[in-house]
Amino acid sequence: MPLLTTAAPLLPTQPVSLRDVEYWDDTSDAIVMGFGAAGACAAIEAASAGASVTVFEVASAGGGAAALSAGDIYMGGNGGTPIQQQAGFRDDTDAMVNYLLLAGGDHADSEKVRLYARQSTAHFAWLVAQGVSYKNSYIAEKTVEPAGDDCLIWSGSEAAWPFSEETKPCPRGHLPQWSGPGRGRYLMNLLCERAIALGAAVLYNSRVLALIIDDQNAVHGVVVRRDNTLHCVRARRGVILCAGGFIMNTDMLKQYAPQLLRAKAPLGTSGDDGAAIRMGMNIGAATLNMHEGLVTLPFYPPASLLKGILIDERGQRFINEDCYHGRTGHYIFQQPGARIFLLADNAIFARPKFSAMMSIEIAAVAESWRELAQELKLPSGALLETITNYNEHAARGSDPQFHKAPEWLQPLVEPPFAALDCSSDACRYSAFTLGGLATLPSGEVLNEQRQIIPGLFAAGRTTCGLPRWGGGYSSGLSLGDATFFGRMAGLRAAGAAVPSPH
Amino acid sequence: MPLLTTAAPLLPTQPVSLRDVEYWDDTSDAIVMGFGAAGACAAIEAASAGASVTVFEVASAGGGAAALSAGDIYMGGNGGTPIQQQAGFRDDTDAMVNYLLLAGGDHADSEKVRLYARQSTAHFAWLVAQGVSYKNSYIAEKTVEPAGDDCLIWSGSEAAWPFSEETKPCPRGHLPQWSGPGRGRYLMNLLCERAIALGAAVLYNSRVLALIIDDQNAVHGVVVRRDNTLHCVRARRGVILCAGGFIMNTDMLKQYAPQLLRAKAPLGTSGDDGAAIRMGMNIGAATLNMHEGLVTLPFYPPASLLKGILIDERGQRFINEDCYHGRTGHYIFQQPGARIFLLADNAIFARPKFSAMMSIEIAAVAESWRELAQELKLPSGALLETITNYNEHAARGSDPQFHKAPEWLQPLVEPPFAALDCSSDACRYSAFTLGGLATLPSGEVLNEQRQIIPGLFAAGRTTCGLPRWGGGYSSGLSLGDATFFGRMAGLRAAGAAVPSPH
Repeated sequence: MPLLTTAAPLLPTQPVSLRDVEYWDDTSDAIVMGFGAAGACAAIEAASAGASVTVFEVASAGGGAAALSAGDIYMGGNGGTPIQQQAGFRDDTDAMVNYLLLAGGDHADSEKVRLYARQSTAHFAWLVAQGVSYKNSYIAEKTVEPAGDDCLIWSGSEAAWPFSEETKPCPRGHLPQWSGPGRGRYLMNLLCERAIALGAAVLYNSRVLALIIDDQNAVHGVVVRRDNTLHCVRARRGVILCAGGFIMNTDMLKQYAPQLLRAKAPLGTSGDDGAAIRMGMNIGAATLNMHEGLVTLPFYPPASLLKGILIDERGQRFINEDCYHGRTGHYIFQQPGARIFLLADNAIFARPKFSAMMSIEIAAVAESWRELAQELKLPSGALLETITNYNEHAARGSDPQFHKAPEWLQPLVEPPFAALDCSSDACRYSAFTLGGLATLPSGEVLNEQRQIIPGLFAAGRTTCGLPRWGGGYSSGLSLGDATFFGRMAGLRAAGAAVPSPH
Repeated sequence: MPLLTTAAPLLPTQPVSLRDVEYWDDTSDAIVMGFGAAGACAAIEAASAGASVTVFEVASAGGGAAALSAGDIYMGGNGGTPIQQQAGFRDDTDAMVNYLLLAGGDHADSEKVRLYARQSTAHFAWLVAQGVSYKNSYIAEKTVEPAGDDCLIWSGSEAAWPFSEETKPCPRGHLPQWSGPGRGRYLMNLLCERAIALGAAVLYNSRVLALIIDDQNAVHGVVVRRDNTLHCVRARRGVILCAGGFIMNTDMLKQYAPQLLRAKAPLGTSGDDGAAIRMGMNIGAATLNMHEGLVTLPFYPPASLLKGILIDERGQRFINEDCYHGRTGHYIFQQPGARIFLLADNAIFARPKFSAMMSIEIAAVAESWRELAQELKLPSGALLETITNYNEHAARGSDPQFHKAPEWLQPLVEPPFAALDCSSDACRYSAFTLGGLATLPSGEVLNEQRQIIPGLFAAGRTTCGLPRWGGGYSSGLSLGDATFFGRMAGLRAAGAAVPSPH
């Protein structure tokens, strides 16, 4: 007996009409597409609220892109998490809200920001309650993904201009307690196991192909392919799309965010193919910021390199080098020319540690800045004036042009001088997408009229969430967004109460 | 008798089901929404091809935003238009293709570019055949909208770096022969009259509220409101959306292109409310580049001001000042700080002529650059170094950093010195949107799978056309795109042959 009455071949990501469904293979209160950070947290909350939950994961294991990360989650406000407090930081909710709004820029979603900031220490407690362990420790040094199992780091641009002038800086990156490079895997193993322990049925190697909708565009279930067989699975309360972004879909990148194709190290899993975003779009869901992404090439640690200066092919600086590496990456990609160098003198030079795999190579070494400019074929005069001006002010501890914080200001005067090649042609920039479906803080997906599409929810990088553009990114924002708003979507889909941003 | 069976109130821009249409008030082969440049040309071609055509225009007269413009159309290639040839330019199609591809950047639509360039002199002949008059004259001076009735101008960045290095420069802006400020109105009066003479039925004060679609999403007609009455009008062959962009829709700007809200002089008519784009989106049409727009504040003529330098709040230059004013505007809006100044010395200073209405005011005048820097509160040292470096190279006729062409290079040494305030807070930047529906060169609207939506066409600023971002804009591109691809949509909707880009 055919599953679907339709004679037409099923087109992936195109909706299927409820009228064409002959029978349901299975039924669940909530169906979750994707078992990464957002999907696992949605499943935990929906199951905890008493809903039956089925998770379909296209890979053969859970974790998603979050499992490839350091597991950093951006949290604070409300007087501080226990880790912040014990490190001496009494974080303020307004300061966190201001930072996130400023970081969000023109596009900030103030409702999501306010809800997230107000609930942030409660979210920390929730993660601990799920079994995630956080060491009571703080790393003051500017770092990216520290070795060891320490917790609290400065993971954004809080201490850098212009943020530092607008709102009280506080470190908010929380890394789980796990030694070695598998911190994101540790976090995701815990969350996935927790969802399963609470009764979520998790089916791997299962690709969601289509949403099933009625004539009013309400979502009633999904068509899934497992073992080469199609199944129609009904969702009594809602389908939650938590299937990542589209950094692995070259066609979508060409269409929406072509500049991200310059980043040679896309960050994600093969599941980040945009299928869930397209499923939403194909039933009228609105999208936001499809052109935005995080682009990065961390050149620190060692932190001494923050005392160097980034220059473009005009021999000019363009940013305070001490801001978050994703903000730097954003502005690097904004410069009209592709050639970008990090200049260092002998006193501060060291090989970038974090980016060994990204291979930032030395483009030139010379005994004088003049010679270096010639080797790099930079405009005569301009580089020397940039250096002279920088050194003159750095000696007095000031950077009137770009406002780098005094601790990173030191004249670059000790030969030999080196240029590290940060050009996008020469390096493996990392990138993932930040655009996606428009949602309410409750995870409900909106159409172009900002009306809720009944039965459809989304969270994580399938949505446009807290992080909205590369220039405003901080480490831990995407995982913070995915875990927290995954929870909201799970609660809402289960019919449970969701905290209000007001 | 009710027009529609549906009990629900009609929601503007949401589709109506064909099943809910009780009867048709009228039927036409092609229905055109909007009687601006794209709509008039679509109507002309569809009517010429023998189709019956009905045009619905929301205003009480035709013309659209094109009637507010200078009527400039970007044309060339193929050995040159007659005007180019007689001015001594033998324009090359490949050069025009290269320029448009380079101008389009990452997002360029190479099919549209190739078709447009190859057909460009034929398009000129077509316009003349419709009755548009072009004077056989050429203005060598860099200008924006010259007084008088002269024709050929340098309307883009062809002679400016990097374009000048990549492809042979040629002037391609063609202004119609009409004295005074109403050139766009003259052009549009002709095109609108021509459409009517060919038999198009034009109904003013008529707002298209909804597309009428069948279960397969094919478009069969529109719901129109006239004299407070709803009418269902059937389109046998197709509906052509030519209803402008969304620069007048603040909600859409907030959602898609918030930076354009900084431009205080939106360029368009009240019809540029995005309704047609939303109608497309609401039946699954793909959109492209919704975040892009043209932003501009022409500070020339007088051309002498091109010998000045634009600086940001770091006291640095950021662009070759001799490129097209829309490219300058794009990069002005890209600078992290809002404060932007045009610096001039006594030898080149004059009040900007074009922008009287945009009121570029003098921010400071001083006897020395040092004093000027203090008045402007710019970083001490940086501005002086910028000026010193610029002057030193300008004296030798070079600009190694930004590659301004030698004719605009002249040391700024004669006091007093002035700063014109080009900050977006202080001036009335002009802007319109460049994002819109994804279409084939034939005007057929595409869904997210790049499949054609049967019965739906679009052209002009309702689509993402030839001009795709502000940094690659040239005057005449939007009108060129609207008139030419309006024609293609009209031909295709009438079932006539459309030239192939291959």
